[in-house]
Amino acid sequence: MNPAPPLDNVRIILSHTSHPGNIGAAARAMKTMGLSQLYLVNPKSFPDSEADARASNARDVLEAAHVCTSLEEAIGDTFLAAALTARSRDLPHPTCNARQAATELVRHAHHHPVALLFGRESAGLTSEEISHCQLTVQIPTNPAYSSLNLAAAVQIMAYELRMVLEEAIAAGEADLHLPEPASLHEIEGLHSHLERVMIQSGFLDPTQPRRLMRRMRRLFARTRLEKEEVNILRGLLTAVDPKKSG
Amino acid sequence: MNPAPPLDNVRIILSHTSHPGNIGAAARAMKTMGLSQLYLVNPKSFPDSEADARASNARDVLEAAHVCTSLEEAIGDTFLAAALTARSRDLPHPTCNARQAATELVRHAHHHPVALLFGRESAGLTSEEISHCQLTVQIPTNPAYSSLNLAAAVQIMAYELRMVLEEAIAAGEADLHLPEPASLHEIEGLHSHLERVMIQSGFLDPTQPRRLMRRMRRLFARTRLEKEEVNILRGLLTAVDPKKSG
Repeated sequence: MNPAPPLDNVRIILSHTSHPGNIGAAARAMKTMGLSQLYLVNPKSFPDSEADARASNARDVLEAAHVCTSLEEAIGDTFLAAALTARSRDLPHPTCNARQAATELVRHAHHHPVALLFGRESAGLTSEEISHCQLTVQIPTNPAYSSLNLAAAVQIMAYELRMVLEEAIAAGEADLHLPEPASLHEIEGLHSHLERVMIQSGFLDPTQPRRLMRRMRRLFARTRLEKEEVNILRGLLTAVDPKKSG
Repeated sequence: MNPAPPLDNVRIILSHTSHPGNIGAAARAMKTMGLSQLYLVNPKSFPDSEADARASNARDVLEAAHVCTSLEEAIGDTFLAAALTARSRDLPHPTCNARQAATELVRHAHHHPVALLFGRESAGLTSEEISHCQLTVQIPTNPAYSSLNLAAAVQIMAYELRMVLEEAIAAGEADLHLPEPASLHEIEGLHSHLERVMIQSGFLDPTQPRRLMRRMRRLFARTRLEKEEVNILRGLLTAVDPKKSG
């Protein structure tokens, strides 16, 4: 089962790449994870035999690559563009990590083209380039040495994009439609319900509720609950509520 | 804030690497994520100028690398060894994905050295090599093209190892002491207990348990349960179990 369709809507844009080997390695990284849409904005040398060599059996990705003379040309018709950046910047952009960005991109990619933008090997993206994006993304790295190779950064992002689909498949969401996340309101409703059942069952001392409920909040905050999951959990809480039969 | 200490206990072992450039790129991939312990089992050429070039500013990792003449020498004093494999094999090993393996490795790495083993570029690890490991790991890939470069595979695993720590920090564990994760055995115990209570409360039809339990498994798989959380959830299940009062 190959979850290709949403990934076909994810465009990898490499801006002003200096080393053609990195373009080839990026193409290979993309293809291993099921991505195929490569856009190159003013590459220093392309096509190039070094790119071909590093692409290995992903030359088809290189051959289909779109070479553009401006970022606008590459990004224009996308509905969400995310900019990879190593540094924190004073920009009015929400910044998220690789995993969060992948979730957001795939969510839109079910319906529209989206873009993930990588800058120069030396200096990354310019502020001007970033200003075309709605989101900035940081890959967590060793603060003492954050110098990710360009193709390695593409590999991590491509992997995270694939993982969004793999996890949906693992959960039996074979139609690849990402489940709808629960709203904050629904999650608050779950916590209130949980607290009530905990108290009624004698599990939680209502005079000392703090620590236990905080732990439950933390657990469910990590998992980013879906709407249907909240419904299941509330159904279960109703079924086991001692008040029900009392 | 650099969560280095557990990562210093994670050993990357490259067995019979053919291309020295891959050793250099692997060293760089490791260092960007805060890993430093590189072991090389019978590399074809090491040290090598191509390795140095690809390592960029991670040459210190190469210089400190341990060159071994047998896998036993590299793996001997570790407490958990995981083997990267692209293929499904008929071996008596639990197989997990990159993310699950990273959690398991970091859990042990708080206390003991652990190893992550990568095989030859062409043919991967031999069955004999895998038999020295307790765990096999697969990185999810495009079924039509799963040919991850060796350094790219190291990069993804190193990234997942770092993410285990990053997520713990994000969850407010600022003292860098990771809460102890639940073992797979404990998580299975929780699922059995949950299924029992769901059936006894009438919430789950025991003749149709599949989909609901799969959703619960997916929810808790995403959240990476901690030992104490499993204890809390099982305590709650015991408190609300209709059998208790019946």
